[in-house]
Amino acid sequence: MTATEIAAAVASGRMTARAAIEDCLSRIERLNPVLNAFTAVLTERALAKAGALDASGATKGPLAGVPFAVKNLIDVAGLTTLAGSKINRDNPPAMADAPLIVRLEAQGAILVGALNMGEYAYDFTGENAHDGPSRNPHDTARMTGGSSGGSGAAVGGGLVTLALGSDTNGSIRVPASFCGVFGLKPTYGRLTRAGSFPFVSSLDHLGPLARTVADLAVTYDAMQGPDPADPVCAARPADPVSGGLDEGIGGLRIASAGGYFRAGASPQALAALDAAAAALGVTQTVTVPQAQQARGAAYIITAAEGAALHLNRLRTRPDDFDPDVRDRLIAGTLIPAAAVVQAQKFRRWFQNAMRALFAEYDAILAPATPCVAPTIGQKTFVLDGKDVPLRPNIGIYTQPFSFIGLPVVAVPVPLAARLPIGVQIVTAPWREDLALRIARTLEVQGIARAPSPNHKA
Amino acid sequence: MTATEIAAAVASGRMTARAAIEDCLSRIERLNPVLNAFTAVLTERALAKAGALDASGATKGPLAGVPFAVKNLIDVAGLTTLAGSKINRDNPPAMADAPLIVRLEAQGAILVGALNMGEYAYDFTGENAHDGPSRNPHDTARMTGGSSGGSGAAVGGGLVTLALGSDTNGSIRVPASFCGVFGLKPTYGRLTRAGSFPFVSSLDHLGPLARTVADLAVTYDAMQGPDPADPVCAARPADPVSGGLDEGIGGLRIASAGGYFRAGASPQALAALDAAAAALGVTQTVTVPQAQQARGAAYIITAAEGAALHLNRLRTRPDDFDPDVRDRLIAGTLIPAAAVVQAQKFRRWFQNAMRALFAEYDAILAPATPCVAPTIGQKTFVLDGKDVPLRPNIGIYTQPFSFIGLPVVAVPVPLAARLPIGVQIVTAPWREDLALRIARTLEVQGIARAPSPNHKA
Repeated sequence: MTATEIAAAVASGRMTARAAIEDCLSRIERLNPVLNAFTAVLTERALAKAGALDASGATKGPLAGVPFAVKNLIDVAGLTTLAGSKINRDNPPAMADAPLIVRLEAQGAILVGALNMGEYAYDFTGENAHDGPSRNPHDTARMTGGSSGGSGAAVGGGLVTLALGSDTNGSIRVPASFCGVFGLKPTYGRLTRAGSFPFVSSLDHLGPLARTVADLAVTYDAMQGPDPADPVCAARPADPVSGGLDEGIGGLRIASAGGYFRAGASPQALAALDAAAAALGVTQTVTVPQAQQARGAAYIITAAEGAALHLNRLRTRPDDFDPDVRDRLIAGTLIPAAAVVQAQKFRRWFQNAMRALFAEYDAILAPATPCVAPTIGQKTFVLDGKDVPLRPNIGIYTQPFSFIGLPVVAVPVPLAARLPIGVQIVTAPWREDLALRIARTLEVQGIARAPSPNHKA
Repeated sequence: MTATEIAAAVASGRMTARAAIEDCLSRIERLNPVLNAFTAVLTERALAKAGALDASGATKGPLAGVPFAVKNLIDVAGLTTLAGSKINRDNPPAMADAPLIVRLEAQGAILVGALNMGEYAYDFTGENAHDGPSRNPHDTARMTGGSSGGSGAAVGGGLVTLALGSDTNGSIRVPASFCGVFGLKPTYGRLTRAGSFPFVSSLDHLGPLARTVADLAVTYDAMQGPDPADPVCAARPADPVSGGLDEGIGGLRIASAGGYFRAGASPQALAALDAAAAALGVTQTVTVPQAQQARGAAYIITAAEGAALHLNRLRTRPDDFDPDVRDRLIAGTLIPAAAVVQAQKFRRWFQNAMRALFAEYDAILAPATPCVAPTIGQKTFVLDGKDVPLRPNIGIYTQPFSFIGLPVVAVPVPLAARLPIGVQIVTAPWREDLALRIARTLEVQGIARAPSPNHKA
């Protein structure tokens, strides 16, 4: 059942919130040992909240009785915020839920747990050295993608209806692509990040993953609005999108990204992109100016700021990091500041160049990942004919857009293949509405959909 | 004659603008060979403007007929913007005057030339390897301080009534202190920096130097107001201060900075500070929290951003830099980005800590420089009992305040000594009005004043 269906059933009295949550918890109990999506299941809390919701009769919320879970870098009262790390396990539990949890629960949604993730979000695989890898619901030998790997696995595997993830360079869109679900990385500053463990402040976003466009939109709407507790959260009022999803795409100028975004893409990635473009009647191909440099600049800023964030932990507890993460962070400590200053200067240039592009087009389509989900443990993959390290390169198509905070919806385009792959719909800042309308159009046409999982349990 | 006196004389018809400018030009002709304050004198332009002003009859402006000059990093139409460098000499001349020049001339002021400065503003001495050192008007064997050395010499030596300088870490306040003039470094974002050669964007300020508080205020008022051409220039409307200079300091809570700001100060610096405090009835001494760390963080950001700005020139024309400047820039290329990220994080902490301090006090007094002007060529000086390199350490008292963009008025407190020294009056952001009222109070009491020059010519 989708979130919309659950909320309607609970609102009409056909189902209790408690029944919805019990159903979810039993799926988690059965499937989590296979997918390793959760690091904490909040059985008591969730059942108590569901019971209270039923008892109160306040069951008309747009998310009434809908179970959701959050990446474990988001504060949950009473849980230690792991951020995928071993080191943070020594921290005291969070005192309060993060504002996004409070906002979702205010609409009737019910938190059922915290989700596995790549260590300190510096990851595109969903592998975790301390909690084990999350596993792809379409082939459990394969990666979920990361760093919001548990979020992708939990929604893609049907363990939970909705999940929250974070996306610094692609960490929502990559697992959405590999796990075959919809993911939204909103405009930078749109959703409050208060109560979440940071990575790179100028690049960090929180956002939802779901199995339908309507579910993605209603979740996003429930979380919008200013929050003084996050200094970069925009003061602009909420801009609800759910009501306008079916307005269609008449008059919208949509283009498909060429050049950099096709050169390294696998046949599956190109087939998905071209299928989406064809379904939308897109005939124009555009070049995103200096996309490779944008990706490189995001890479430099990430490594340098990540190193700064973890400097003290790198000094005092180097052996408690995942070596793969640690060694990239240590490399980040050596990046000269002048390189970062130049990357930031380039960021302003790229922002202006993309603003000009969005004066001509309302949306741009691009692959979400260069390939379908690799095998867990795989260290390299073939990109543009060359065998390249997998961990840093899975996000080459997501990084240029998050670099300047553009909103992106990743839609799953399963085609006939066994493994899904995602397509990004990118719009100008604050135009999540357009990206979601385009996603909805692809969904209505049957091009974008979250395929049924294929895990054995 | 002060700017106010000249404008009044021109307005009343007792003097023509042309006479005022001719008088100024003849002083420049006579004294500049001694002080080396100017790198370009705009005789024709200035006389033409003065003649046009007289002919137009529009002689009522608050700066009518007042001669001024600008640090040679500010664009003057037809002049190459040197920024104190040899390398920039190959650039084409500026196409237009910088907005601050346009605004001053709109009030009747007349630009007479461009002023010597430390190379690329990375300087506290006023020595320049290409144009020679500017010389202190109170002892021509001594430094002016820098990097706005020509600005200090020209106003302190009476060559010109007003000058503009720039201040990244103290480059207005240090020469104001050594040359015995008033200097204003406004709140970060108050005055547009469009049309000026940058150094460290997050620290760069432009501001005026003058011989009286009224002149400083009227010049500052003429330059205020938003300018979309400088992205960091605040959108807030002008906030004129000239009218309120004599409102006194009744009710203002003023404190004197202790700890870091006294430890390294010479007896002259302390005597000036204590004389100003006594005249204002200040009895409280406060500790500026982590002032030394603030200075260190500003130092790191400056070196790193300066290196990024000049990276290409360092690669292609290393021999055309002043070696003293070049070697510090090269050192800056090696600073790891993580150190800069931590310095920026500290900056936010320091901003909050100072905001708390300014909830308790309206203004804080501190020395402008640890000592009076050193001898030209001097490489070290005694600070807190230790012989330290002079170039980086002259600004130890100015750096912590510009680091977070606080407004500061530097007032000259000559006492009985042959050489003047300055005191900083620091206020909360956007409260230039309070700093100027306090400066005016000290001026009325005879504590703060620009002493007559002592050059021989």
